[in-house]
Amino acid sequence: MDSIKSVVIVGGTHGNELTGVHLLRRWEQKPQEINRGSFVTETLLANPRAHAMNCRYIDQDLNRQFAIQDLANVTLPGYEQNRAKAINQLIGPKQDPARDFIIDLHTTTANMGITIVINSLNPIVKRAAVYVQKTVPNVTLFYQEVDRMEDNFMISIGRIGGLIIEVGPVAQGCLRADIFEATRVATNAVLDYLHLANIGKAPELPETASGFQFVKKVKMPEDEQGNLVGMIHPNVQDRDFQPLNPGDPLFLLQNGDTVFYQDEPGLCPAFVNEAAYYDQHHGLSLLKHIEFEV
Amino acid sequence: MDSIKSVVIVGGTHGNELTGVHLLRRWEQKPQEINRGSFVTETLLANPRAHAMNCRYIDQDLNRQFAIQDLANVTLPGYEQNRAKAINQLIGPKQDPARDFIIDLHTTTANMGITIVINSLNPIVKRAAVYVQKTVPNVTLFYQEVDRMEDNFMISIGRIGGLIIEVGPVAQGCLRADIFEATRVATNAVLDYLHLANIGKAPELPETASGFQFVKKVKMPEDEQGNLVGMIHPNVQDRDFQPLNPGDPLFLLQNGDTVFYQDEPGLCPAFVNEAAYYDQHHGLSLLKHIEFEV
Repeated sequence: MDSIKSVVIVGGTHGNELTGVHLLRRWEQKPQEINRGSFVTETLLANPRAHAMNCRYIDQDLNRQFAIQDLANVTLPGYEQNRAKAINQLIGPKQDPARDFIIDLHTTTANMGITIVINSLNPIVKRAAVYVQKTVPNVTLFYQEVDRMEDNFMISIGRIGGLIIEVGPVAQGCLRADIFEATRVATNAVLDYLHLANIGKAPELPETASGFQFVKKVKMPEDEQGNLVGMIHPNVQDRDFQPLNPGDPLFLLQNGDTVFYQDEPGLCPAFVNEAAYYDQHHGLSLLKHIEFEV
Repeated sequence: MDSIKSVVIVGGTHGNELTGVHLLRRWEQKPQEINRGSFVTETLLANPRAHAMNCRYIDQDLNRQFAIQDLANVTLPGYEQNRAKAINQLIGPKQDPARDFIIDLHTTTANMGITIVINSLNPIVKRAAVYVQKTVPNVTLFYQEVDRMEDNFMISIGRIGGLIIEVGPVAQGCLRADIFEATRVATNAVLDYLHLANIGKAPELPETASGFQFVKKVKMPEDEQGNLVGMIHPNVQDRDFQPLNPGDPLFLLQNGDTVFYQDEPGLCPAFVNEAAYYDQHHGLSLLKHIEFEV
């Protein structure tokens, strides 16, 4: 199996998600916490301008700017389109990366606890995530089989990829000590696994793991002019990962009426009432439960 | 006692506090809900541009732009400094207002339930707030004795002033059905009281009420360069209005150390971890418990 020589912990990919940014500051003071004997750990504030402005991004979502053709296209004008190239210069280049593994720290306004997003076929990535789930309470796995070269996420420019640690609920532009601590513990568990794997002491893990796969985003109710006229129903608010069945309440309209779930039985909502979804009037994502090979 | 002929319900004074904005849309569809026989009720989206940008304000906090000298000063260049004059033209002029009573709808990221802010000496304003507290669960009163002509809040341009209904916790840029409903119920209770007072059927209220008075804002920990290096301690997070005593944990530093409360015994925190406080690195306000004459 590949050995890991270098890890980059990324914070502030979305500028108003403060937890990662402030964890980086902690680790500037306490580098020993993220060092492991068998690899070098670095940190990166990914979107310093969006962080300074306390917004998610300046021009585009930075976490969608790492497609190979976009990294090659120097005519793209946006701040994040160019920032991605600078980051690719440091961590990548994507075709032959200088750094091995990326841990990208995010937060959500949804009540999702710790969610680990794995866009990877690589067994080290999958096993690191399963190890976190095994050793840290309240961890959910999001698994997409995506080839690294086909992906446009930040984590796709590491040599073997990486994973996203997404923790909530916390408001944009806010720090919460509980979310900060959960993110810190989950990050350290990833580093622990990579080190144990490097030195040949990786613990036994089950051959398959339970997780969720993205199905689709669901729009909130709009009127004919495209104005938002509803919100998440109280029965769904804060209940990420609880299965929905046809006839369950889904949205509450401003006028007091209820909109019911009419989709496939048993899909589970996530990113319920995520603030970053409002620009497109999305209310939540729907996921299906899966078992995947580790 | 003065009778009320006109009420204005204001939403979106802060553009990313969505609850008030969406309640206004509800009431466009259901005007009968906010009509009462003895006065006219209107609605106003106060800061449409900040709302369109999903930010608190464009140039300045709109809710500090209603000082009499600022309303008179046409050299002030900011969007909110000019928007305040437009609103004063509709509701005021402050010296001799066309509208009697303002209900200004706000939200907070802090766990404050329903807080009614009363900057007034006027008995109708105070009694309306006490009536809400008597008839709606989980209502706290903030009371400042401020002469209407000395105040710079939106509510100061109504003939007898008005009150702020501030509800949380909800993230900026998000709607929550529970917060929407609490704000709706509290607003209707204010309208009910004004109507009952108008028709001579105001219920008996106690001669004094319990509430809180603002003492000061408290800065979060900073390093020598002025960077934020701490956050609200978990013992204080979500515990608005619970008294603090010297030696109680107050902030948790990024390095894991605790900063202890060293102020006057018994002061109570509010706006704990309010996202809008971060620009000045404030972590919370401290209040003292008071009894005031109604």
